[in-house]
Amino acid sequence: MYKSNKKMGKLILENTSEIFRPSARTERTPASVTRDILKVIDTPGMISFAGGLPDDSLFPIQDLKNIFETSISKKGARLFQYADTQGHSELRAWIANRYYPGSSAEEILLTSGSQQALDLLSRYFIEEGSPILLERPSYLGAIQVFSSYAPSFIGINYGEEGPDMEELKYVLATSSEKPKFFYCIPDFQNPSSYSYSLEIRNSISKLLLENGIPILEDTAYRELYFEEELPISLCELGPEHTISIGTFSKTLAPGLRIGWIKAPKKILKDLIVQKQSMDLHSPTLNQELVYGFVSSSKYEKHLSLIRKTYQKKSGHTFDCLQKYFRNTISLKISKGGLFYWLEFPQEIDTDLLFRKCLEKGLAAVPGSSFFVGKPETNHLRWNFSNASEEQTKLGIERLFEVYKEMTKV
Amino acid sequence: MYKSNKKMGKLILENTSEIFRPSARTERTPASVTRDILKVIDTPGMISFAGGLPDDSLFPIQDLKNIFETSISKKGARLFQYADTQGHSELRAWIANRYYPGSSAEEILLTSGSQQALDLLSRYFIEEGSPILLERPSYLGAIQVFSSYAPSFIGINYGEEGPDMEELKYVLATSSEKPKFFYCIPDFQNPSSYSYSLEIRNSISKLLLENGIPILEDTAYRELYFEEELPISLCELGPEHTISIGTFSKTLAPGLRIGWIKAPKKILKDLIVQKQSMDLHSPTLNQELVYGFVSSSKYEKHLSLIRKTYQKKSGHTFDCLQKYFRNTISLKISKGGLFYWLEFPQEIDTDLLFRKCLEKGLAAVPGSSFFVGKPETNHLRWNFSNASEEQTKLGIERLFEVYKEMTKV
Repeated sequence: MYKSNKKMGKLILENTSEIFRPSARTERTPASVTRDILKVIDTPGMISFAGGLPDDSLFPIQDLKNIFETSISKKGARLFQYADTQGHSELRAWIANRYYPGSSAEEILLTSGSQQALDLLSRYFIEEGSPILLERPSYLGAIQVFSSYAPSFIGINYGEEGPDMEELKYVLATSSEKPKFFYCIPDFQNPSSYSYSLEIRNSISKLLLENGIPILEDTAYRELYFEEELPISLCELGPEHTISIGTFSKTLAPGLRIGWIKAPKKILKDLIVQKQSMDLHSPTLNQELVYGFVSSSKYEKHLSLIRKTYQKKSGHTFDCLQKYFRNTISLKISKGGLFYWLEFPQEIDTDLLFRKCLEKGLAAVPGSSFFVGKPETNHLRWNFSNASEEQTKLGIERLFEVYKEMTKV
Repeated sequence: MYKSNKKMGKLILENTSEIFRPSARTERTPASVTRDILKVIDTPGMISFAGGLPDDSLFPIQDLKNIFETSISKKGARLFQYADTQGHSELRAWIANRYYPGSSAEEILLTSGSQQALDLLSRYFIEEGSPILLERPSYLGAIQVFSSYAPSFIGINYGEEGPDMEELKYVLATSSEKPKFFYCIPDFQNPSSYSYSLEIRNSISKLLLENGIPILEDTAYRELYFEEELPISLCELGPEHTISIGTFSKTLAPGLRIGWIKAPKKILKDLIVQKQSMDLHSPTLNQELVYGFVSSSKYEKHLSLIRKTYQKKSGHTFDCLQKYFRNTISLKISKGGLFYWLEFPQEIDTDLLFRKCLEKGLAAVPGSSFFVGKPETNHLRWNFSNASEEQTKLGIERLFEVYKEMTKV
């Protein structure tokens, strides 16, 4: 493996592969397609609809600058010192008050984005081989991090009103081992943009409680409704068996990396210990910036602006898609969130479509990445929040060209 | 488990314990003593020497404010958007250039503090039951996070010149399974303040290479020398079999949560995928603030100031300890780092001493927390970087009172 090079008086390594022996976890963690696509975006001429990127022209930069200045004169060095693992107490109280009626700051743990929340909850729950329930399709970042803990995935098909309840009941009735949790995105899901109806919310919360299965509810897109607010959250319906995950990435700015977990106190205590071992605490300054902004009178106006802007972008995207594709893809106008979930005819393989698009300087995410088990292969996730109207028009033109070419063959 | 309360039309949960079924990992992750102590610090009248807290009067707050303003006008929204997982490329280049001669930005991954680096490397390496080597004593945050991955710990005694080489050789010769790595802090170790001599550095690097065992070298305190720089790092001696961990927590500000991993490129690629699944990326703004400061001409002066200040504090602490304890505890004046590792006579149980100190409004960390295997129980870790001279005097007075009481009984 090594040879002693006497002349040089130095050891020379011939092969490092025997030295670094990664865990099985390393092998089974897939690289995220979107993160890989993010790297391609900088290619000249590339237009990307791949990431779930907010429109960064909406970031309230001047406000954040002002908050930074005020906080520094008020709190000084404390903004830069080690801090409590659970996080900024006023921000926790604000989150509890706004999103979880009747709860308190004690039930909130701040995390480094909702991705860390997913990792933390995976650590908390998953043993190798543990069955876990999740939607089909589901968020690929969640699938990625869950995968690294090697659970046994059970997918439940997600339609326009919510998960298929018959399928869920069947799975619960026939599973030999009780699933550790049901992970779900009931609000403008990434990637499908579907939401749960009130009826489904009620029945799924009840069904899972009856079966003693906790819900992990990911609320990342809940604030991004265009006209009508969504029905009551699963966490509000069943706070005792629901853990809620939230983030400021879509409503404020993802680069700050601030998200949260709301969980029953007893569980939260253990989650805090896990967070401690993971990174001690999330950055103090970032929590302070978020708190400064969301607790100000500007936040509601900011949310209105985001909703209005994204509604306009969604409408424009819808119009362009209609114009080019007409009836070849069936599409409803989006009511919220960041994505269109384009469904192509069965014979179109969107993995291939995706690669052909990349060659034309166009990026979006092939649907197969969002499925556990056997993937459906005729979807494409199309983000509408980041690109300009002009880019959107050009992008959909390119997409249609590629599509036409593929159907010709 | 639940009963349907017909009158209320609501499900009432009688017992949530069957619903949330944590993984074995949850059970085996110990809460960190220091983090728990951090919570007690705010008790009125409490003086704490427990945390490894930098002196926050040294944080270059005005500079950070200026950098924030300049960066915002230069980079604008990009500071708040999603960013690359590997991190700020200029900061990575700066780290490579300063600390790892001959390396490049490609070999650096930015992390949320060095604690995340430890978690990430645990994920990468450790299987349940994997033997891992580490010093006795060792950093408790590392022991905490390693524990959550359930390795089999092999402790090697750390003395004033470095680890006991005979012991290490014996372990290597007799282990039935090759250890996954050797975790070490060769520079002003936390908690012992010991460093490796040049001779030990050479021989340990060679020995581990010969045995095909990678080194995880934690350099957190390396910059904090008072007069003489320490000998060459293990990573520079053997870059092909050493992974280096660093942090700006001690040299700039811990609240920013920026650390790094330097590893051979091939390994780094897998580490990036793990980091992706853990939190997508570390906050952009924080990386920018760190880069702005360390790349400026002010950084060297800042380091000099920190070294001078801590040397003075260390000297004052030494004088107070000498004054009260005289020869009852043997002590050498510190040459760097943040701690005194107080060794009491064998019959003094510092877990008990610690509890008695807390009652008197004094916090430090009992030595037992820093040992894998059978702990030594007559040490106390005493931080000297954070408290004022007056607090230090008062704290050591209190410590001596408690000590006297204990020896009287």
